Amino acid sequence: MSADSGTLIGNPIPWPNDARCAVAVTWDVDCDSSLNIYNPNKADNLVASQSFARYDPLIAVPRLVTALRRLGMQQTFFVPGWCIEKYPAAMDLLMEGGHELALHGYLHERPNEISADDELYWLQRGIAAFTNHTGQRPRGWRAPSFAFSKHSLAYLVEEGFVYDSSLMGDDVPYVIKHKAGSLIELPTDWTLDDWPHYVFNRDFKFTMPISAPSKACEVFRAEFDAAWRHGGLWVSVWHPFVSGRLARLDAAIDLLGYMLAKGGVWFATLGEIADHVRKVMDEGAWKPRVESYPLYNSPIPELTRIDGKDARRARSR
Amino acid sequence: MSADSGTLIGNPIPWPNDARCAVAVTWDVDCDSSLNIYNPNKADNLVASQSFARYDPLIAVPRLVTALRRLGMQQTFFVPGWCIEKYPAAMDLLMEGGHELALHGYLHERPNEISADDELYWLQRGIAAFTNHTGQRPRGWRAPSFAFSKHSLAYLVEEGFVYDSSLMGDDVPYVIKHKAGSLIELPTDWTLDDWPHYVFNRDFKFTMPISAPSKACEVFRAEFDAAWRHGGLWVSVWHPFVSGRLARLDAAIDLLGYMLAKGGVWFATLGEIADHVRKVMDEGAWKPRVESYPLYNSPIPELTRIDGKDARRARSR
Amino acid sequence: MSADSGTLIGNPIPWPNDARCAVAVTWDVDCDSSLNIYNPNKADNLVASQSFARYDPLIAVPRLVTALRRLGMQQTFFVPGWCIEKYPAAMDLLMEGGHELALHGYLHERPNEISADDELYWLQRGIAAFTNHTGQRPRGWRAPSFAFSKHSLAYLVEEGFVYDSSLMGDDVPYVIKHKAGSLIELPTDWTLDDWPHYVFNRDFKFTMPISAPSKACEVFRAEFDAAWRHGGLWVSVWHPFVSGRLARLDAAIDLLGYMLAKGGVWFATLGEIADHVRKVMDEGAWKPRVESYPLYNSPIPELTRIDGKDARRARSR
Amino acid sequence: MSADSGTLIGNPIPWPNDARCAVAVTWDVDCDSSLNIYNPNKADNLVASQSFARYDPLIAVPRLVTALRRLGMQQTFFVPGWCIEKYPAAMDLLMEGGHELALHGYLHERPNEISADDELYWLQRGIAAFTNHTGQRPRGWRAPSFAFSKHSLAYLVEEGFVYDSSLMGDDVPYVIKHKAGSLIELPTDWTLDDWPHYVFNRDFKFTMPISAPSKACEVFRAEFDAAWRHGGLWVSVWHPFVSGRLARLDAAIDLLGYMLAKGGVWFATLGEIADHVRKVMDEGAWKPRVESYPLYNSPIPELTRIDGKDARRARSR
Repeated sequence: MSADSGTLIGNPIPWPNDARCAVAVTWDVDCDSSLNIYNPNKADNLVASQSFARYDPLIAVPRLVTALRRLGMQQTFFVPGWCIEKYPAAMDLLMEGGHELALHGYLHERPNEISADDELYWLQRGIAAFTNHTGQRPRGWRAPSFAFSKHSLAYLVEEGFVYDSSLMGDDVPYVIKHKAGSLIELPTDWTLDDWPHYVFNRDFKFTMPISAPSKACEVFRAEFDAAWRHGGLWVSVWHPFVSGRLARLDAAIDLLGYMLAKGGVWFATLGEIADHVRKVMDEGAWKPRVESYPLYNSPIPELTRIDGKDARRARSR
Repeated sequence: MSADSGTLIGNPIPWPNDARCAVAVTWDVDCDSSLNIYNPNKADNLVASQSFARYDPLIAVPRLVTALRRLGMQQTFFVPGWCIEKYPAAMDLLMEGGHELALHGYLHERPNEISADDELYWLQRGIAAFTNHTGQRPRGWRAPSFAFSKHSLAYLVEEGFVYDSSLMGDDVPYVIKHKAGSLIELPTDWTLDDWPHYVFNRDFKFTMPISAPSKACEVFRAEFDAAWRHGGLWVSVWHPFVSGRLARLDAAIDLLGYMLAKGGVWFATLGEIADHVRKVMDEGAWKPRVESYPLYNSPIPELTRIDGKDARRARSR
Repeated sequence: MSADSGTLIGNPIPWPNDARCAVAVTWDVDCDSSLNIYNPNKADNLVASQSFARYDPLIAVPRLVTALRRLGMQQTFFVPGWCIEKYPAAMDLLMEGGHELALHGYLHERPNEISADDELYWLQRGIAAFTNHTGQRPRGWRAPSFAFSKHSLAYLVEEGFVYDSSLMGDDVPYVIKHKAGSLIELPTDWTLDDWPHYVFNRDFKFTMPISAPSKACEVFRAEFDAAWRHGGLWVSVWHPFVSGRLARLDAAIDLLGYMLAKGGVWFATLGEIADHVRKVMDEGAWKPRVESYPLYNSPIPELTRIDGKDARRARSR
Repeated sequence: MSADSGTLIGNPIPWPNDARCAVAVTWDVDCDSSLNIYNPNKADNLVASQSFARYDPLIAVPRLVTALRRLGMQQTFFVPGWCIEKYPAAMDLLMEGGHELALHGYLHERPNEISADDELYWLQRGIAAFTNHTGQRPRGWRAPSFAFSKHSLAYLVEEGFVYDSSLMGDDVPYVIKHKAGSLIELPTDWTLDDWPHYVFNRDFKFTMPISAPSKACEVFRAEFDAAWRHGGLWVSVWHPFVSGRLARLDAAIDLLGYMLAKGGVWFATLGEIADHVRKVMDEGAWKPRVESYPLYNSPIPELTRIDGKDARRARSR
């Protein structure tokens, strides 16, 4: 009896240099954008949470740049446009460190909670902020709060994005396709997000028990071990002001050391991974799973039967 | 001093081949049914959660079929009717793998939150979807969200079900009886559900700290060890898109390995267990505990005293 | 450097036979009383939660009686009056086992959320149910949900209670005094309640991560070790349908084994402890701390200044 | 590969005697002030929570004074003015023990949830209570619930405070500057607060899973190890009625023992640390990071565009 006699991934992708798996440590650099949008009428008065959030550009980003230089690693940083404008020095440090910048909304607005027009407005404003500062249009996207809307794919295609990393539908890259074009999806999961393990802060409406770094890293490491065994893609969703605090960063660096010691790991930015995916697709070396979007354009018919009775009942729940 | 000198189960059931306990790994294959019903006005716009939920039929079910084939095990999969219609390929894979399909509502509606008429409507629609695809009527039922109503038993009896696995009233099978007939109850408990250990997702209104697979499996294993010691029934309530992710499935397979190594375990589907229960009852080898339902037809009288004062006060809490 | 050179309890009480500490495992036997009062309009329709709650009288109480007989221990069971009337057989088992019954409201109503008149009405109805079945008036009280009101002490004194175990103000017994008389307070703390460790159930508005029994018992054991070191009183607040499930009861019994092996522990019912406290007080061997109640008869004046401005602001929070 | 080849702190401060780090165990002595303000209309009726909160002055403070005398340590205690007036004996014990008292509001009101005028009113009332009892004006401040407002800095400067310990923006001291003057900021973080690890109490709107003391101390110790490695400042936010309970205090004392054994730790009050910071600044031995406040005087313009549309949409979330 053993289920261990082969990968449990349906269509494993060939990684460069026969690596067992790919690891992309990615960071969402929210700074105080989300604090402002979560508390539009009082964020100016939440000084402790401002200090909590501004640890991002002022303390954690410089620290990460230093630590990653020592490690010889480049990683991917998703940044809201407003943060680029507000904290340009932190952005410059990241760019000088050779890291990849990608876009994470403008003010951390949730695309699926605003109108389609507004979504496009903020997306373009984010792109403008990004392009103005970096001199390049963004190639990668992660929706703030993973709030990818039914319009997002079309907009991203239209704006020339190459990859998205907001979805959770697989353990390896896949393709998300719209009639207007397609993106490489580099999926992650809440399991690799640091908030559920570390954040207790009422102003962020997030009050979880705070784990020891060793405990959070057990979760992250278990995901890595499985990716390594089965050939998967491991994409963290960490935040400088959360995982960039001293004790947690020490633990994260220990985890990277564990990965390095295990061997056979391709450490890469998401941009590099997207390029690799495109290459093996173009070469015919791998055929991705393709998902067409949007899945639904409106509530499903079972919820909108003509008499509406059940739907109303369900809705009133 | 020892409390270990005998079982703590009042009426232990004889398991086949003198097994110490019975283990039924059961899965609720919700796909995106619950996402739709929890968010009737906006599920079409929750793309990341769609991808999270559709991992069920697209990734996890094929993976489970593969893994269970390697393990040589058949298990029980509860499926809402809508998912059968929506994801027939996944259903076919399960059937080809020799697994048991059982019914889990139509759209993951909660029976005890809708009217009695609606409950029957959706139950029959679920049965129709099930029967259309599998060619057989369902024999087993688990209420979505364990939301078994006071009408459920009568309906299930009427529709010819053999067993239910929604209740939590014992550690061994029992009989739930209505004037119209009875079912075998194969009880479980939230303790063996994977959601409290693993799921953080606001669109599902479920934001728990995420445990490492090894930590969740400590809970599941403790329940198993106790079932083994005392002769109980161990029924997991796992979800492919939760426990079918790579790291968790590896841990679950390790747990199955632990059970196999301990020995004396009867691994079975719930259908097989229900048949065994019926057999030992018919043979007179075991007398089940019987519970008659409904327990209450209306709020208890203490809450509806004529003057109503206390009841109103209590209700206004 | 050491803080360990003596007890950290201000006025340690002499325990019988020079015991290091006293341990009272106490159980709140809520059955489905709280389910009804928490869901006055729909509890009749919550069948799975009914089965979850009725595990109390039908499965767990008989099991506990068996297990405690094997252990040779008597313990204290707090029971709402309605449960006594509803499940007399379970009560008889407890009485036959030599256990102490004490009162826990009538329908698990929270005294500090109803009027003073209603509190007295339900208290007396609880006493009547208790006395009718047991032939004795109750000597001990624990307020449902620890919801001891500012009227409770006077009522309990008037009704002849000897001790209360609802408060959390010390690590050893103390006296709570009203102008009409006084009670022995045998304090506990949420730390020794099993709900925060084990209960996930929406119908009870209680959705905590579910710990492994070994993890919950680490908390309970740490409290015991400290009580043992410093001479304290350890009073658990366990529930048969929670901690009486197989795996948890096995772990609880292991914990009792740990306590027994450590030695110097006085295992007792709360009634026995109250009697001991009274005795050492009467003998002048120990002088208890005394708290006079009620502390406040109305909101404190700082919240009700004449102009009311701050108070209103504070209240509107 | 190593990121361990140097501190990850940008501008490490020289600690006295070449200590590796500074440790300030600080306590917020809320007593029942916060219970009253959180429940202005019913705190008088919440007797169990009163007893839970009054464990602070009646049990835990005397215990801490004893334990710290044995340890030969002085620590910092933040106290609301109302508690000073209400529990003068506990204050006297702390003063006799040589501990530092600092101010923590008047009734644990949250400055950023009341008007600027009220904030000043309560601040001055707190100062008056403090000065009346201790004979000295307070030098240090921690905002209740970390609710430092945009007006707080100006008020604190005006009232002659020397340091604040409410913010979370760094791992070493920094300076917070207002046009009227500046304070030394001695930052902490929710990670070192004991509530997320230990408190389950509905009357405090705080219902977390309760950790074993050893588990909570893993979190605190990980922060210490990182502070020690990198040269940081470790400031706990503990509460006598939470961490002063027997088992938790034993664990906290064990943690202090661990720190002492590791060596190179400067144990100090926050007042001593603030004085040291001022000294190394005045001597030119260290240049602090300076943050100017307020950061924002009103909601950011992106949220108040002329047409207001997006802002309204965002606000309506």
